[in-house]
Amino acid sequence: MKYLLHEIRHNPMLWLLLFVPVVFLAEAFKPGAYTMLFVLSVLAIVPLAALLSHATESVAAKTGDAVGGLLNATLGNLTELVIALTALRAGQYMLVKASIAGAIVTNILFMLGASFLLGGLKHHTQEFNKVGARFQAGLLFLATVALLVPSATAKVDSPAAAAFAQELSLGLAVLLLVAYGLGMVFSLKTHRELFTSVESGEAGEAPWPVGVALATLAGVTVLVALVSEVFVESVQEAAKTFGMTPAFVGFIIVALVGGAAEMASAFSGARKNRLDLSVGIALGSASQIALFVAPVLVLLSYVIGPSPMSLDFWPGAVVMMLIATLTAALVTTSGRSAWFVGVLTLMVYLTFAMSLYLLPPGLR
Amino acid sequence: MKYLLHEIRHNPMLWLLLFVPVVFLAEAFKPGAYTMLFVLSVLAIVPLAALLSHATESVAAKTGDAVGGLLNATLGNLTELVIALTALRAGQYMLVKASIAGAIVTNILFMLGASFLLGGLKHHTQEFNKVGARFQAGLLFLATVALLVPSATAKVDSPAAAAFAQELSLGLAVLLLVAYGLGMVFSLKTHRELFTSVESGEAGEAPWPVGVALATLAGVTVLVALVSEVFVESVQEAAKTFGMTPAFVGFIIVALVGGAAEMASAFSGARKNRLDLSVGIALGSASQIALFVAPVLVLLSYVIGPSPMSLDFWPGAVVMMLIATLTAALVTTSGRSAWFVGVLTLMVYLTFAMSLYLLPPGLR
Amino acid sequence: MKYLLHEIRHNPMLWLLLFVPVVFLAEAFKPGAYTMLFVLSVLAIVPLAALLSHATESVAAKTGDAVGGLLNATLGNLTELVIALTALRAGQYMLVKASIAGAIVTNILFMLGASFLLGGLKHHTQEFNKVGARFQAGLLFLATVALLVPSATAKVDSPAAAAFAQELSLGLAVLLLVAYGLGMVFSLKTHRELFTSVESGEAGEAPWPVGVALATLAGVTVLVALVSEVFVESVQEAAKTFGMTPAFVGFIIVALVGGAAEMASAFSGARKNRLDLSVGIALGSASQIALFVAPVLVLLSYVIGPSPMSLDFWPGAVVMMLIATLTAALVTTSGRSAWFVGVLTLMVYLTFAMSLYLLPPGLR
Repeated sequence: MKYLLHEIRHNPMLWLLLFVPVVFLAEAFKPGAYTMLFVLSVLAIVPLAALLSHATESVAAKTGDAVGGLLNATLGNLTELVIALTALRAGQYMLVKASIAGAIVTNILFMLGASFLLGGLKHHTQEFNKVGARFQAGLLFLATVALLVPSATAKVDSPAAAAFAQELSLGLAVLLLVAYGLGMVFSLKTHRELFTSVESGEAGEAPWPVGVALATLAGVTVLVALVSEVFVESVQEAAKTFGMTPAFVGFIIVALVGGAAEMASAFSGARKNRLDLSVGIALGSASQIALFVAPVLVLLSYVIGPSPMSLDFWPGAVVMMLIATLTAALVTTSGRSAWFVGVLTLMVYLTFAMSLYLLPPGLR
Repeated sequence: MKYLLHEIRHNPMLWLLLFVPVVFLAEAFKPGAYTMLFVLSVLAIVPLAALLSHATESVAAKTGDAVGGLLNATLGNLTELVIALTALRAGQYMLVKASIAGAIVTNILFMLGASFLLGGLKHHTQEFNKVGARFQAGLLFLATVALLVPSATAKVDSPAAAAFAQELSLGLAVLLLVAYGLGMVFSLKTHRELFTSVESGEAGEAPWPVGVALATLAGVTVLVALVSEVFVESVQEAAKTFGMTPAFVGFIIVALVGGAAEMASAFSGARKNRLDLSVGIALGSASQIALFVAPVLVLLSYVIGPSPMSLDFWPGAVVMMLIATLTAALVTTSGRSAWFVGVLTLMVYLTFAMSLYLLPPGLR
Repeated sequence: MKYLLHEIRHNPMLWLLLFVPVVFLAEAFKPGAYTMLFVLSVLAIVPLAALLSHATESVAAKTGDAVGGLLNATLGNLTELVIALTALRAGQYMLVKASIAGAIVTNILFMLGASFLLGGLKHHTQEFNKVGARFQAGLLFLATVALLVPSATAKVDSPAAAAFAQELSLGLAVLLLVAYGLGMVFSLKTHRELFTSVESGEAGEAPWPVGVALATLAGVTVLVALVSEVFVESVQEAAKTFGMTPAFVGFIIVALVGGAAEMASAFSGARKNRLDLSVGIALGSASQIALFVAPVLVLLSYVIGPSPMSLDFWPGAVVMMLIATLTAALVTTSGRSAWFVGVLTLMVYLTFAMSLYLLPPGLR
């Protein structure tokens, strides 16, 4: 607690933590004021994300960037998992799939691109461990290929096609989970020496003890999840006020706010010239959603959902995931980065965001 | 003969050679017992493949891995060529195309992936000549692009479209053959020094004299071809007994058994840390089928087929070939391998196999 | 002028300059003799291209290959811009788009491939700056992705879809121009040291003074533009005489002749072992057309065209641009080249050219 108070005293951004109780009070007394709840929840998520960032860096300082990045991605994606589980229980499969696809695309293109740009504006060129990036890109490539088949055949409108998509999705979910598990064995056990960081980090602030850091990680993650739920309830209504399409909200807004915590960590790593941390968070988080969160949701849909969920996405979503994966493979192939690599990656994201923003209803 | 007997005495697997005459006897006296013929022919192909493997390694020991790999791919693909010619003469163009596409995909994903996995389980990391891999990936990329156009326009159902596909296929067949020929000039003559192996092989068993090895190669290849024909005749009926779809049989089973000989060589090379040999066999065999066997079949269809054969494949087959080629390019780009690279490649293959296995009839 | 005359005296190819006035005379007195005008204009463009080549090399000698390449690409594409503007004013949007897509594909596949082949026939292996190639490939990748969305949704035939494509095209045009501008800041200012050439050039002829070179560049470019217009007017009619399809003419013939000037420079650079110049011209020219010429045409269509032009291309054109970009990324990834890399790249181009040549009308 003393570490936390010390941190709050020295970091004015954390004063926004005041908005966390405000959100819960507002939701209790004004549950219908969606636009206000939307703004309040965004303001509350920002400082929580900053806290999470500092706690993760404290753990990462003891465990090496790769493990720290994995840890961060795991805890950061609890938010996405909690949101998706709520929607799953309500049978809103379209929303679940949009938030999965959006989170993958946003983590790859926006988080990675902005990390490259922010890091590149401060440092002339930056290096990172390309073995780690290639590993994550490989996992993402497998996941995208796995989503292609059920999505391609889902267009055919027949009972046989639906049964096929369902059976196949179950098999693919198991396959992706196995690949994810073996990937952890590979990166954390048998070949962990390949994933050590390029030595380029500046000495950061004094890290917290691991116990404090882990406790903060856990507690703050729960708070993020709670505030995110208020956010998700209010965002669709607030979006209408601001004139956004549902596709844009599901794909872009939910993904951006849902990933705010990880983005704060990734961007801060990039500014401190620890690009391994940034790349590990961005790509690791994307591949975790694709190979862990999505399959777990398919399996859980048999238990808690009204009916089984399959892995068929609308073609546009699959194409965006495929292009995002290709982009990740292309921009990380050299293990070096400069600001323009970030610009290019962000531009690909902007292309998608612009298309979704302008997309007339019924044209998906 | 004395080398052969010595080999048989020291390698218990070769005792399965007994099944070769048994297959021919069974076919002569019980031509309708498809399930039995299927099992017998698989049992007979395994030892023949092992013999082929040893003979090829003997030649490779004298000529360098790249040339040995090419030699192996050439002779190994005689099987595929003989099978396809039989089907071509009978006018079964669907079967010809399925076995071509299946052999390409299986050689790239299964043979390469299993080589990486088997080699990686024994050796921590392995190196191979990435110039050779890039060369083969380039040839495969060209072949896939060449198949895209006739396949994309084949959906249009009109006489003009059919005539166009036929004319274009003839032109593309000639173009692919020219590319393949120039590729051999490049890799075997003008730039052969680029294709020499990374020095990592363990000393193998004493190789046979080149004459014995070549004679064994030729004779055993003929036997493989003969047994394979029994296999192909029986596999469709046996598949029904085991409950497999025709798409799965044509794409996966025929390709796996047809390539058994090359797989034995590739896997044994990987275990002996001669990954150049494995990569050369896997990718070389795939590109030979795409740029030599397929075009030759198109040209021969004018002579021996009931009508000319075009190069239009069903869209799913083209997509699988494209993804397989991309996978080959991605996993060979660094010239290094570990067991998880093999897992990833095999997982992509499993995705395809699972989709084809579950695919309901009429949904291709 | 004295430098020009000296050059003409020593280079017999320049005697073809005689055809420049002949073209203008022929057009004035025989405006309907299309086949003759076609042949004459091609004969006139060749020496102009050669002059342009020498002038560009003179400037490049003072500024470094990367800047010289950019300069060349800028001036060389004036031809394409003038042609497209003429067609735009006439409302021939199909022709504008075909010439844009054709120029991108031809510059990448034909110009780059022929440079690799011609350079490789003279030099065993050649090296080039792979950072520059990767930079251009990244820009082209972004442009191709940006064209995917409006092209994919253009199939849907509704007023909402048309309005969406138009709005999106305007936004994407601005986005591509911003990316192009930032790319110039990156390659010419903040990170120009990354784009310096690999030292491998042979000492060329004595370069002209920069003033003379720049004046020649400007004057000859205007002449090329004028002759190109005669060429474009005559080519469609002449094509019918030779039995070519309109798709083939728009995509291949216009692009080949429109890029003749740059090709002369690129090929001469490759022969002199200055492959950086060749790669810079080929890919730089393609990305300039995609990220500068095309967006400028969209914006200008609001001012000078009969109606706004959108960025939707027919699917075949988008697929060709995507494959061309992938090919560029694959063949430049190692920074080394040999003749067979050129063969492979040219073969991909031949596949496209053959398909367009045989394509029956109404099947696009």
